[in-house]
Amino acid sequence: MTGEVSTTTGERGARVPTNEEDDARYLDDFAAVSTFGATPGGGVERLAGSAEDGAVRDWLVAWMRERDFSVVVDEIGNVFGLVELVPGAPYVAVGSHLDSQPLGGRYDGAYGVLAAAHAVDRIRRHALDGGDVTPRYNLAVVDWFNEEGARFAPSMMGSGVFTHKASVESALATADRAGATVEQALRQTGYRGSDAAPSLVGYAEIHVEQGRILEDAGITIGAVESTWAAHKYQVVVQGEQSHTGSTAMSDRRDALAGAARLIVAARELADAYAGPPALHTSVSELTVLPNSPVVVAREVRMNLDLRSPSAALLREAEGRFLAQVREVERTTAVEVSVRTTHQWDQQPYQSSGVELTQSIAAGLGLPCIPMQTIAGHDSTNLKDVVPTVMLFVPSVDGIAHNEGELTSDEDCLAGLRLLTEVVVAMAEGAVVDTE
Amino acid sequence: MTGEVSTTTGERGARVPTNEEDDARYLDDFAAVSTFGATPGGGVERLAGSAEDGAVRDWLVAWMRERDFSVVVDEIGNVFGLVELVPGAPYVAVGSHLDSQPLGGRYDGAYGVLAAAHAVDRIRRHALDGGDVTPRYNLAVVDWFNEEGARFAPSMMGSGVFTHKASVESALATADRAGATVEQALRQTGYRGSDAAPSLVGYAEIHVEQGRILEDAGITIGAVESTWAAHKYQVVVQGEQSHTGSTAMSDRRDALAGAARLIVAARELADAYAGPPALHTSVSELTVLPNSPVVVAREVRMNLDLRSPSAALLREAEGRFLAQVREVERTTAVEVSVRTTHQWDQQPYQSSGVELTQSIAAGLGLPCIPMQTIAGHDSTNLKDVVPTVMLFVPSVDGIAHNEGELTSDEDCLAGLRLLTEVVVAMAEGAVVDTE
Repeated sequence: MTGEVSTTTGERGARVPTNEEDDARYLDDFAAVSTFGATPGGGVERLAGSAEDGAVRDWLVAWMRERDFSVVVDEIGNVFGLVELVPGAPYVAVGSHLDSQPLGGRYDGAYGVLAAAHAVDRIRRHALDGGDVTPRYNLAVVDWFNEEGARFAPSMMGSGVFTHKASVESALATADRAGATVEQALRQTGYRGSDAAPSLVGYAEIHVEQGRILEDAGITIGAVESTWAAHKYQVVVQGEQSHTGSTAMSDRRDALAGAARLIVAARELADAYAGPPALHTSVSELTVLPNSPVVVAREVRMNLDLRSPSAALLREAEGRFLAQVREVERTTAVEVSVRTTHQWDQQPYQSSGVELTQSIAAGLGLPCIPMQTIAGHDSTNLKDVVPTVMLFVPSVDGIAHNEGELTSDEDCLAGLRLLTEVVVAMAEGAVVDTE
Repeated sequence: MTGEVSTTTGERGARVPTNEEDDARYLDDFAAVSTFGATPGGGVERLAGSAEDGAVRDWLVAWMRERDFSVVVDEIGNVFGLVELVPGAPYVAVGSHLDSQPLGGRYDGAYGVLAAAHAVDRIRRHALDGGDVTPRYNLAVVDWFNEEGARFAPSMMGSGVFTHKASVESALATADRAGATVEQALRQTGYRGSDAAPSLVGYAEIHVEQGRILEDAGITIGAVESTWAAHKYQVVVQGEQSHTGSTAMSDRRDALAGAARLIVAARELADAYAGPPALHTSVSELTVLPNSPVVVAREVRMNLDLRSPSAALLREAEGRFLAQVREVERTTAVEVSVRTTHQWDQQPYQSSGVELTQSIAAGLGLPCIPMQTIAGHDSTNLKDVVPTVMLFVPSVDGIAHNEGELTSDEDCLAGLRLLTEVVVAMAEGAVVDTE
């Protein structure tokens, strides 16, 4: 990246020209995005449908309108910025999400949305300049509503409704802990839209890895070829209220004591399957009733999340966990129900997308490996309805869902260049027409 | 209890006359009290300072005014109903609390307040009738504010302020989880008083046992001679936010996994000290941050409650628990702080009160044993400032802090008769003048 040629790339293999000014503008814009909901610890807190989420979306909409993107907002608040290159043709969409976890990181989602916006704008300008582009499809930047699911469950809500995995009615009626609904939150922030969403033929997304595989291997780009398998559950432990002092220990049916044994069992299960293939387990959301200092808990509700690259291992681990549940019921005198809320086996992304990514990365001189995603992303939904390319850039120390989340500027810019080339190729039919 | 003599007791040993009409009135009044905050499961929910708490207090105040009690309300919302038998003399108070736990029982506290009101009224009527009473002190019924501490911590707030164990300023400024203060709640319910509390020389309280000792032994009356020792703590487990999927297990610092190990350790400690002397342990109130389905918890705050009749055993158990804390810090990569919030060793009630109770119970033909209280009560505070008598009646199956809490009408009425005799004796100087 020498910049000696200002209107075309200084790197081998790039078709869409870029220069140091473009990169500086990207970094400036990323700093601007990071101010919305900025936290003292260097992260962001932009829960879906919050004022901060609304403000950063307003910023994105203004940015896109300044560049002549047509902005449409659908019923569940997905925001699309449309660039028409081929009148009447369907769209290749590129995007991610601007919402965050509580005390979340600056890069998770926001990097993908801003990289998408800059990639599409670079292609738009190149096409306007009469550059070497022969698009068959139009381009759309997308900010999916509520990917994180921190305030309104479940996660990946906007892309879930878009791909018809969830109904718009049930999504809009979803309430947060204070009783506010998605519909109310969207109206308050101005993103309860009524526009038709664009018709898509393909989707691309770039995201920070949220693990340390790329960093440990010294690789810049991950081409996601599949998801880990994941089983998610709602666990309800039923005990009986009693007095924390006067009730004899042998008379207690303590829901929190039972839940604690299950949390420990889940952790020990991960230790037992250290792998490879590994098993990741966690309980992270938990509600105690009545949650009083002098009342033994009558009920605990909690999530349970089991993930593995091996669907067979996951089924075996599930069986071992359910045996633990029976044991805890027996020894703690509680009743436990376990309900599956999400479940997916190891799922492939379209292999042509991995091949395209590897080819373009090689042309750009960027080290690239195929890999799996452990986390879910909006692309996990999209890949089931249109050919989808999912890209990763490294996360420093693998830190994720944490204010300390970091990806270097150099890696962010390399990812942006790669995404731009992937998207222009998809606009010309790569991946889309081969699937 | 044959009722063949309508204006004097049908039982041996009773000085204050009673009859079946009085008993029926008591049962009717108890049914009325139980309608305030009644729950579908047969319990009550009257959190301190709630509308339901205000309404039941209004009922009590009206009941006492109809019978010419003078009602005063002090700064922390303790309600006193005064009956002056000896102009200018100080008071023997009798009472308990009308607030409840969430989905609590009908008897816990409410039995003691209503029994106090009826006992004092029986004595008042007997004195007005020129009965055989030579009082040295006046009588006060008291409903202590916020004994339960479910909404506003700590518990035993009204009696704590009355006995100068807590300042009225800090109590009034205490906020619930929604940010409402005690002062606001008292003003809203009309119980932010400004009256001077009566000057006390003695205190009596009757309460349901909340355990199964009396029932198992077939005994009607427990004369409380001491409290168990209790140590209560605030435990904070610090971890680090990360992604429940993508973060490698070995990189996690999961505050909820650490907290769960400590909850299990506390339970196993109770199993290790099955006794006698027994150890009771519990964790019942727990907050997870950020409490999201896809974010490993950064922090868990919880209570820990250790109780035993043996202060030495309690100190030993505390040492073992703290060793477990260090072990959990080492194995789960979390940091744990343990702060003592309440601590009391085994404490005696005045022995003259136990002797008086046993003597009167024998006179009434009621089986009575000396026993300990495991739970704290307002009398736990009062006994440190004035001679105090604490009485128990049986709890069916020992059920407490639960909608299913039950004491038979027969036991309630027997306790009321006993309490009446104890209070009239105290008004004449028993216990009060011997201490």
